[in-house]
Amino acid sequence: MAKPSKQTASPSKDINACLARWTGLVNDALDRYLPQPNCAPAALHRAMRYSLFAGGKRLRPALCLAAAEACGGQIENAIPLACAVECVHTYSLIHDDLPAMDNDDFRRGRPTCHKVFGEAVAILAGDALLTQAFEIVALAKAQPRYSHGDMVLELARAAGSRELVGGQVADLQAEGRKISTAELKRIHQRKTAALIRCSLRLGGMSVNCSPAALDALTEFGTNVGLAFQVIDDILDVTQSSQQLGKTAGKDQAAEKATYPAIVGLEKSRQIAARLTNRAFESLRPLGSRADLLRALGELMLRRDR
Amino acid sequence: MAKPSKQTASPSKDINACLARWTGLVNDALDRYLPQPNCAPAALHRAMRYSLFAGGKRLRPALCLAAAEACGGQIENAIPLACAVECVHTYSLIHDDLPAMDNDDFRRGRPTCHKVFGEAVAILAGDALLTQAFEIVALAKAQPRYSHGDMVLELARAAGSRELVGGQVADLQAEGRKISTAELKRIHQRKTAALIRCSLRLGGMSVNCSPAALDALTEFGTNVGLAFQVIDDILDVTQSSQQLGKTAGKDQAAEKATYPAIVGLEKSRQIAARLTNRAFESLRPLGSRADLLRALGELMLRRDR
Repeated sequence: MAKPSKQTASPSKDINACLARWTGLVNDALDRYLPQPNCAPAALHRAMRYSLFAGGKRLRPALCLAAAEACGGQIENAIPLACAVECVHTYSLIHDDLPAMDNDDFRRGRPTCHKVFGEAVAILAGDALLTQAFEIVALAKAQPRYSHGDMVLELARAAGSRELVGGQVADLQAEGRKISTAELKRIHQRKTAALIRCSLRLGGMSVNCSPAALDALTEFGTNVGLAFQVIDDILDVTQSSQQLGKTAGKDQAAEKATYPAIVGLEKSRQIAARLTNRAFESLRPLGSRADLLRALGELMLRRDR
Repeated sequence: MAKPSKQTASPSKDINACLARWTGLVNDALDRYLPQPNCAPAALHRAMRYSLFAGGKRLRPALCLAAAEACGGQIENAIPLACAVECVHTYSLIHDDLPAMDNDDFRRGRPTCHKVFGEAVAILAGDALLTQAFEIVALAKAQPRYSHGDMVLELARAAGSRELVGGQVADLQAEGRKISTAELKRIHQRKTAALIRCSLRLGGMSVNCSPAALDALTEFGTNVGLAFQVIDDILDVTQSSQQLGKTAGKDQAAEKATYPAIVGLEKSRQIAARLTNRAFESLRPLGSRADLLRALGELMLRRDR
């Protein structure tokens, strides 16, 4: 997709093996944090697990762990925070899929939570996963520079009404309306970049990173998050026109505001390339320790689906 | 309603004035914590404020402040935590009222959040208030005995899948079914007592209370919370049969599991009285400093609506 700048030359060959190992670690930890599926009320705990273990790519947890490593710390420290961020991400997907919102029946080829467990339990499973996220942060290890208060504030702000939740409201309100690129960028910032940036910052905080390293992660997070969403918009268009026999993309059907719809495909690709370059540029202060983070950025931004 | 035991002789005459003052303090603080109504996305922030400032009794915040006072501390310390608990309570009401749940069109004589703002925004306003609660806890003052981690854990567990959210699932699942009193008590414990107990404990924690004082608040919270819900069940029946011209109580219509439905009115009153006595008994170790807390208990348990 978009070209990275020069200093990001060699994505680690090990990135896929590394991702598989990290996904295993995160899944094991999530399994320990969550109540067992037979724990009462069983329907609720089964619904939480159904969505949490639905085969997600664990991208945000991977960013969290890679950030910890890029700051010279042990990834073990970041695992609780990686789990917390994934709980927030999963809750947001469950609620976004509800009939009152995007009304999606399938996610990753499986019926969505409310199709299996009913709307009431799906809403409550989302609520419980959001709450679970903060329980897990409270169980993480505080650091000299970053208290539990700092970590909870970080997650609460990224997930709150000005960012993640606000982004979903703004996204719904933009449907069928003509909005500016500035407005669209603000939606992407909230809907996508805020939680990605938070995942990276929490990873750094979990290993007591320096303020300078935290700044680099913040800058990387904003740009990689924005680029990721522009590329998502582009793929939604190019995929639906390439894959014959498939109904038109959901974004178009719902008259979602997207970069291709507002500035066209070519300009969207330029924007994605610019954001991608900025993202890799911002990792420079972290040096070679950020190689896995770079490789992860490559995976996110050079994808075809 | 139920009789308190002897040592709870004189409810403070000042309790209503005190409650009015505390409500003012809590409302002012909530107004400062929440984004302004014109803050983007405005619909979301207006919806959050619509439900949060709908004239609720601020019972849980009052318990939180009274607990701080009963432990010899300044109520100012407890205000952030009182606000956090009220955000959780309000979010739970917004979600409980949704069409997929209890499907209520009115609460306290005003249209419910989803009737005014639509289902999508109501779901998201609930999500945002839950998240806001943890942001506020993170902004509270930590104490030597109780870190931010302890306070967040306290709230997350009370609001989570084993308690508050779990209670709502269990409550929905019990509709139309014959359940045991033990099962019903467990529902009340989750649905009502958990957050009331948490409000009291957080109040104590905010002023660095002793472990013994925390135990007393915990015991009081469990019993006052359970008694409060039994009395609620009783009033739902006696009110609907006394007030001619009014349609039958919602509990009966929804075939909700309640004490009167399971053990009858007389036995329900005995249970309420026993729980009430136990509640006041458990405040004994706190001595006269708990007088406001006793007065508040009287208000909660000797009511006719």
